[in-house]
Amino acid sequence: MPTSRIEHDFLGERTLPNDVYYGIQTLRALENFDITGIPLRAEPLFVQALGYVKKAAALANRDLGVLDPTIARYIAEACDQVIAGQHDNQFLTDMIQGGAGTSVNMNANEVIANVALELMGRKKGQYDFCHPNNHVNCSQSTNDAYPTAFRIALNNKLAGYRDELAMLADAFAAKGEEFRNVLKMGRTQLQDAVPMSMGDEFKAFATNLREELLRIDDSRHLISEINMGATAIGTRVNAPNGYAELVTQHLRELTGLDLVLAGDLIEATYDTGAYVQLSGVLKRTAVKLSKICNDLRLLSSGPRAGLFEINLPPLQPGSSIMPGKVNPVVPEVVNQTAFYVIGADLTVTMAAEAGQLQLNVMEPVISFALFTSISYMSRACRTLREKCVVGITANAKHAEDMVRNSVGIVTQLNPVLGYETSAEIAKEALRTGKSVYQIAVAERHLLTQAKWDEIFTFENLIRPHFIQ
Amino acid sequence: MPTSRIEHDFLGERTLPNDVYYGIQTLRALENFDITGIPLRAEPLFVQALGYVKKAAALANRDLGVLDPTIARYIAEACDQVIAGQHDNQFLTDMIQGGAGTSVNMNANEVIANVALELMGRKKGQYDFCHPNNHVNCSQSTNDAYPTAFRIALNNKLAGYRDELAMLADAFAAKGEEFRNVLKMGRTQLQDAVPMSMGDEFKAFATNLREELLRIDDSRHLISEINMGATAIGTRVNAPNGYAELVTQHLRELTGLDLVLAGDLIEATYDTGAYVQLSGVLKRTAVKLSKICNDLRLLSSGPRAGLFEINLPPLQPGSSIMPGKVNPVVPEVVNQTAFYVIGADLTVTMAAEAGQLQLNVMEPVISFALFTSISYMSRACRTLREKCVVGITANAKHAEDMVRNSVGIVTQLNPVLGYETSAEIAKEALRTGKSVYQIAVAERHLLTQAKWDEIFTFENLIRPHFIQ
Amino acid sequence: MPTSRIEHDFLGERTLPNDVYYGIQTLRALENFDITGIPLRAEPLFVQALGYVKKAAALANRDLGVLDPTIARYIAEACDQVIAGQHDNQFLTDMIQGGAGTSVNMNANEVIANVALELMGRKKGQYDFCHPNNHVNCSQSTNDAYPTAFRIALNNKLAGYRDELAMLADAFAAKGEEFRNVLKMGRTQLQDAVPMSMGDEFKAFATNLREELLRIDDSRHLISEINMGATAIGTRVNAPNGYAELVTQHLRELTGLDLVLAGDLIEATYDTGAYVQLSGVLKRTAVKLSKICNDLRLLSSGPRAGLFEINLPPLQPGSSIMPGKVNPVVPEVVNQTAFYVIGADLTVTMAAEAGQLQLNVMEPVISFALFTSISYMSRACRTLREKCVVGITANAKHAEDMVRNSVGIVTQLNPVLGYETSAEIAKEALRTGKSVYQIAVAERHLLTQAKWDEIFTFENLIRPHFIQ
Amino acid sequence: MPTSRIEHDFLGERTLPNDVYYGIQTLRALENFDITGIPLRAEPLFVQALGYVKKAAALANRDLGVLDPTIARYIAEACDQVIAGQHDNQFLTDMIQGGAGTSVNMNANEVIANVALELMGRKKGQYDFCHPNNHVNCSQSTNDAYPTAFRIALNNKLAGYRDELAMLADAFAAKGEEFRNVLKMGRTQLQDAVPMSMGDEFKAFATNLREELLRIDDSRHLISEINMGATAIGTRVNAPNGYAELVTQHLRELTGLDLVLAGDLIEATYDTGAYVQLSGVLKRTAVKLSKICNDLRLLSSGPRAGLFEINLPPLQPGSSIMPGKVNPVVPEVVNQTAFYVIGADLTVTMAAEAGQLQLNVMEPVISFALFTSISYMSRACRTLREKCVVGITANAKHAEDMVRNSVGIVTQLNPVLGYETSAEIAKEALRTGKSVYQIAVAERHLLTQAKWDEIFTFENLIRPHFIQ
Repeated sequence: MPTSRIEHDFLGERTLPNDVYYGIQTLRALENFDITGIPLRAEPLFVQALGYVKKAAALANRDLGVLDPTIARYIAEACDQVIAGQHDNQFLTDMIQGGAGTSVNMNANEVIANVALELMGRKKGQYDFCHPNNHVNCSQSTNDAYPTAFRIALNNKLAGYRDELAMLADAFAAKGEEFRNVLKMGRTQLQDAVPMSMGDEFKAFATNLREELLRIDDSRHLISEINMGATAIGTRVNAPNGYAELVTQHLRELTGLDLVLAGDLIEATYDTGAYVQLSGVLKRTAVKLSKICNDLRLLSSGPRAGLFEINLPPLQPGSSIMPGKVNPVVPEVVNQTAFYVIGADLTVTMAAEAGQLQLNVMEPVISFALFTSISYMSRACRTLREKCVVGITANAKHAEDMVRNSVGIVTQLNPVLGYETSAEIAKEALRTGKSVYQIAVAERHLLTQAKWDEIFTFENLIRPHFIQ
Repeated sequence: MPTSRIEHDFLGERTLPNDVYYGIQTLRALENFDITGIPLRAEPLFVQALGYVKKAAALANRDLGVLDPTIARYIAEACDQVIAGQHDNQFLTDMIQGGAGTSVNMNANEVIANVALELMGRKKGQYDFCHPNNHVNCSQSTNDAYPTAFRIALNNKLAGYRDELAMLADAFAAKGEEFRNVLKMGRTQLQDAVPMSMGDEFKAFATNLREELLRIDDSRHLISEINMGATAIGTRVNAPNGYAELVTQHLRELTGLDLVLAGDLIEATYDTGAYVQLSGVLKRTAVKLSKICNDLRLLSSGPRAGLFEINLPPLQPGSSIMPGKVNPVVPEVVNQTAFYVIGADLTVTMAAEAGQLQLNVMEPVISFALFTSISYMSRACRTLREKCVVGITANAKHAEDMVRNSVGIVTQLNPVLGYETSAEIAKEALRTGKSVYQIAVAERHLLTQAKWDEIFTFENLIRPHFIQ
Repeated sequence: MPTSRIEHDFLGERTLPNDVYYGIQTLRALENFDITGIPLRAEPLFVQALGYVKKAAALANRDLGVLDPTIARYIAEACDQVIAGQHDNQFLTDMIQGGAGTSVNMNANEVIANVALELMGRKKGQYDFCHPNNHVNCSQSTNDAYPTAFRIALNNKLAGYRDELAMLADAFAAKGEEFRNVLKMGRTQLQDAVPMSMGDEFKAFATNLREELLRIDDSRHLISEINMGATAIGTRVNAPNGYAELVTQHLRELTGLDLVLAGDLIEATYDTGAYVQLSGVLKRTAVKLSKICNDLRLLSSGPRAGLFEINLPPLQPGSSIMPGKVNPVVPEVVNQTAFYVIGADLTVTMAAEAGQLQLNVMEPVISFALFTSISYMSRACRTLREKCVVGITANAKHAEDMVRNSVGIVTQLNPVLGYETSAEIAKEALRTGKSVYQIAVAERHLLTQAKWDEIFTFENLIRPHFIQ
Repeated sequence: MPTSRIEHDFLGERTLPNDVYYGIQTLRALENFDITGIPLRAEPLFVQALGYVKKAAALANRDLGVLDPTIARYIAEACDQVIAGQHDNQFLTDMIQGGAGTSVNMNANEVIANVALELMGRKKGQYDFCHPNNHVNCSQSTNDAYPTAFRIALNNKLAGYRDELAMLADAFAAKGEEFRNVLKMGRTQLQDAVPMSMGDEFKAFATNLREELLRIDDSRHLISEINMGATAIGTRVNAPNGYAELVTQHLRELTGLDLVLAGDLIEATYDTGAYVQLSGVLKRTAVKLSKICNDLRLLSSGPRAGLFEINLPPLQPGSSIMPGKVNPVVPEVVNQTAFYVIGADLTVTMAAEAGQLQLNVMEPVISFALFTSISYMSRACRTLREKCVVGITANAKHAEDMVRNSVGIVTQLNPVLGYETSAEIAKEALRTGKSVYQIAVAERHLLTQAKWDEIFTFENLIRPHFIQ
């Protein structure tokens, strides 16, 4: 058994260790691209999606008579192994590469060809019997195969992320129910505003995040448009008639996704609009998560010199020097994840803008940014839910005391006393430290005790009804 | 007739010139906020929308019996004048202010109160008869009135922008038709790829931009959700029962927009997700426009040492030193507009992230960024259409010559000769300067003249059919 | 006196109203560029700098014998008028234009030529006697004249901004002195940490901003490198020998700035690195200002349900619905300004990246972004100082009470009791609500009253000394 | 030998496998933070720097009598092992964590304590003899130890990056020399401008990048300011007198870096300005690299339908479908790296803005962004140099032909014929396809053959001299 083999391409010959399934073009890519050190296999869904694409192409080519049925069968079988994750360790191209994904596509073509060759009883490298370009890549170009696989992988990855986000929203909703009778001061501009229910505050977090689920669905819809059959630039050159539609149909069946062939293949081959949209959706959710985590940190500030309305579950000692200090470490790590994702959105934006003429060659960095952002966001959602939200408790008494002691409740007197009189009461309360009750009822007799009692019931503070 | 009047608020008294309709709180805002120097009136649609909001509130308050019908009538009449643009010059608050829009809201309240007072036969400042807070702002807070007006204005402004963008896409589509029989070299990675029709290239620009129209429609849908009746923080404090639904109904009728009351008013009062989404849509279109303009500049490069496939209409001498030079000035200005819009999207992102607890106080800078971006994008689309796209001409002969002279046509031999043989021909052509025809047919006899002629018809170059 | 005149360029003839000093190329620019609606004259320092550049060029051309001394004299005189601001209303080109500044340069060339013609006793448009290109633009290209003027204007504008920033830092420093004996709780991660002096907190704001002054000085140094004499692409084509050095010398004298001729004129003609650096400096200061304003808003939160350590001066009623509410409107507007500037930095980044080959054609949008950012930052600094910082007062008693009542003071026991024992005390204090003193001294006798008194003096809390 | 041990902190007890040197707090961090999956050990220079910090602290504490000399000696010895990289595999905390670096600091404290214990002949976990907090972290807080280690690591990492960048600039300079007599058309706005030397174009790339070396030096200077001895918030609480200065002196000696103690420790403890500045420097270089790579891709475009002035070394087949196509894969991957770095700069910006009061808790994501950006940039520079720049060749004849055939050379006639006549010649040349020579000399006799020959020598085209 030889330990190495020689392969060639139009640039020359190279020796490969015989135990690897990838070939000369992958080898060149490994030498040429060393930027992130993170190999393609770090995204197994992407490897899997390449398997789907190559299998669908083989089937369509067979159906249309441009690929020998036996070769097609072996290619399909090899693809099944790739789809099952059996060859992940052969997908080693750096996540960022030049060449618009050609190295990724050839990595797949070569691995599948060599796996198929062995299934046929041939040896790796005997490409006359199954060739990476002529057979595995038949009727394809990197420029349709690569983005199609990318979109399938994104679609599947988003499904998992969507679940995590939904569960986080549910956790907030559950807290909303739990805290529904906790009265607290609402704040605008960090200034005491009017009373509210802490439950409504947490329910709003749930609402806020649930809106994102719809946006994710939009994104999944947009990235379900593929350009298989476009080949090099969208003119369908070298693809048999009917191929584009047929391969799309095969892919729909293989993946179970609602994939659609783009109407304008020239445009679809260079367009990165769907990635920009998706990245924008991730960014929007990151913005919301960051705002929510800022709120959690504010509300749990203290314990003695802060708002101290809620307690986050203590996870680890918070300081190497300050004994007993516990920090809001989970919201903090989610904030940081959000900043990462917002930065990655800029990477996507710049890469999208850099497309030229018939192709956007920057798609690899877009894939790197999107895959990473989705992974980090998924983990951040899970961490926030498991390690923080489900364990939050309310300091109900302290929260209610702050309301009772506040000047902000004066707003509730507006419909009765008018804005200007109410403002005067507020001003005096702030100047003297007196309570609103003391000034309005006891001293100035601006309203009766009965009216006061009618207005300032717990029920009317936490969920106000209109009283004039 | 006195030339000045004195007004007061809970911070004290101030003198105002008697010819101004705004009052003491606007005056304070003018003194406090001097950042951009650009007054609110620069966005007349925003002023108009404030008129709609205040009128709808007056009508709903009247219907519910919390506002005297006569006062309501005068307020409505004053609002009509504001809506008609008669008092634009009274809306002077700087586009960026602190206070989450309170100054803008009070600017509107004061102007409308004083206009109403004069309509009643009273004098400006006689607020007992019509008070900016107690009457004009009745059942409202800045925190619902301001974002509602903002969203109505955005909606109307987007309508105009959408039209400009659609017309630009149409102009590209018309060129697509005009150039449908211009054969040119398609390029990927700036390298010669395979032939195509210049018409398809321009049609793709149209497709690319028309997708944006749908995204604008999404945005208009999202910003049609309003929070009138939420008052200060979404608890509806101080708003009569049924008010939120009724005022929304009035606003729908007054504006003709499909406005919807938010389901979770606590959330809706602080959420800026719809702005982030809209800003992302503007950014995506900017990214696409920038890519298209990059292409137009590349394709018109030369005249002698560039691609020179198309000519942009000459608009002005291009150089103060190089005689006869004409530059692609319109694509250039559109590129720059795109960079502005992409920057403004970051402003929106940061402002959205900075929301805290029950309010996002940064909404004014979001409004500034969005209004400006929509204006600039509208004008950029119009400029690009009128001054550039409609006048583009093709250098058809030069474009076809480059195809005929290319090595890239070798791809069309792939299905006949296989990838490796074709690659060898390409390599020799590049090394020797010979044509593909010379090597493949004349010297190596790899295919017959007849087969060559079948493959390389004009029709098959410009819109290839599969030939094996 | 004719009311109009006809001018021509190589694209044809156009009629101009005879009272305008600008000519046909400016007219074309006005028609071609309508994006921001903000004319060049909005930056009078830029107009002035164009006057300096054109005057210096005329003098150098005269010295080297390539410009008739009489014409040079009239040009110089016309430039003096431009420098003095007498013709600002003739500089109307939109702040964003295509053509890499050619329209701005030609606007200057035309205005100066026509002013010079009138000074000569000729009529506007009689360009045989003084021609915008041949005489005013002699030995220049837009590609050296425009960036040089831009850099001079930036330099002068930064001088004013630096002063505002320095005064703001001084205002913080003064508060630092005023509050030096106010004891307060220091906070990390929004959690109570250890005590500190409020004066040190404000002094740190001053330190933080004063570091920015040095960075501005760096930027001014970098943008003092100019490329006059480079002409079109840096080869000095059409500029007489010695011109570049001589015109730089004249500019140094005219402006009083320490301008330096770039060592590599090819590079200097396309490089935008100095703008990226300057924009980064503005962004850094914006980031710091935003953080400081966030702190001011946090520290003044309340009044009853917040930290309430400081009071910002009340500037305007804070709510249209909540009587007596006063908001931190000035920090809020500064935050928003910061977000604008951070967005503008992205605009500059993208424009810089878009440079191609021998020129960066996107310089106009860079100039728009930088001028706007500097203006806004200057006004934000002034507003923050005048309307907020100088009027801040401390709630000293409340701040000290929070310290005395805190658990965070337990850190001071670390060196005496060790981390673990201290942590146990902290935990018990939090659980029971007891004070650290109660547990450590009264109940557990872990240290004597005397030791406690030694450690917890006011002086040792506010400016701790090491006690073991 | 037991296979596990039990440790406790104030939140409770946990079991650890006995072969790990880290302790309970690191264990909690591993459970709490799972975002990037990238452990601290991915940055060995950071681990090393923690070793330096802990050793310096031990020595200073010993000198000042607050740490037993024997314990100090064992800690120092353990630190030496960490510095030497012997325990990298114990530093497993996720690169992004909450807690402002506390987990990283405790990871170091625990590993060092346990290594020291074993050196003493004790067992892991016998913290009475050497405690992570009381001994290893003595006189420190995370808030001074962590940023100090971070800054030392950055400093060392930048040294390697600087070398790579310098070598890249040198490679461009060498090509500048090699191509000094290659005549080519200079281009502004992608339009033919005036002739130049290709050598000067490449030399300008070198100049452009060499300016960055100075900016890196600035950054290294700024990040050399440290805050050791500040402890929790900069008040020096719990640090003995003279400690800050002494530990800084020890660190200077241990690292060989020119570290300086910050003048305002309160400010230094929360300030992230130096990171923002450094990130801006990395971004600026990324912007420049991206522009240069755009140029390389433009100049090598073709081969038949592009500029084709230069050839990049062919590294791999460029297409899975287009035979013989070779793509500019290395510039492409560098462009993408630049987009990543620009995105990471935004992450740093947002994290810096999010600092609050006495600390910026977002420092871990700043460290992640900066370390990653520096790594990627270093590798991109090396790749660009080794795989691309050194192998670039010029198509000198084609480049010169384009000049000779151009209209742009008409600029050289400006000083002789004036702008307007030259413009007329240019216009006719473009309209008719004739050469400038044909029109100016042969047909119109505007200048003599002798004058033409004087002006259009090779020497005067490539490095023009002024001729009137």
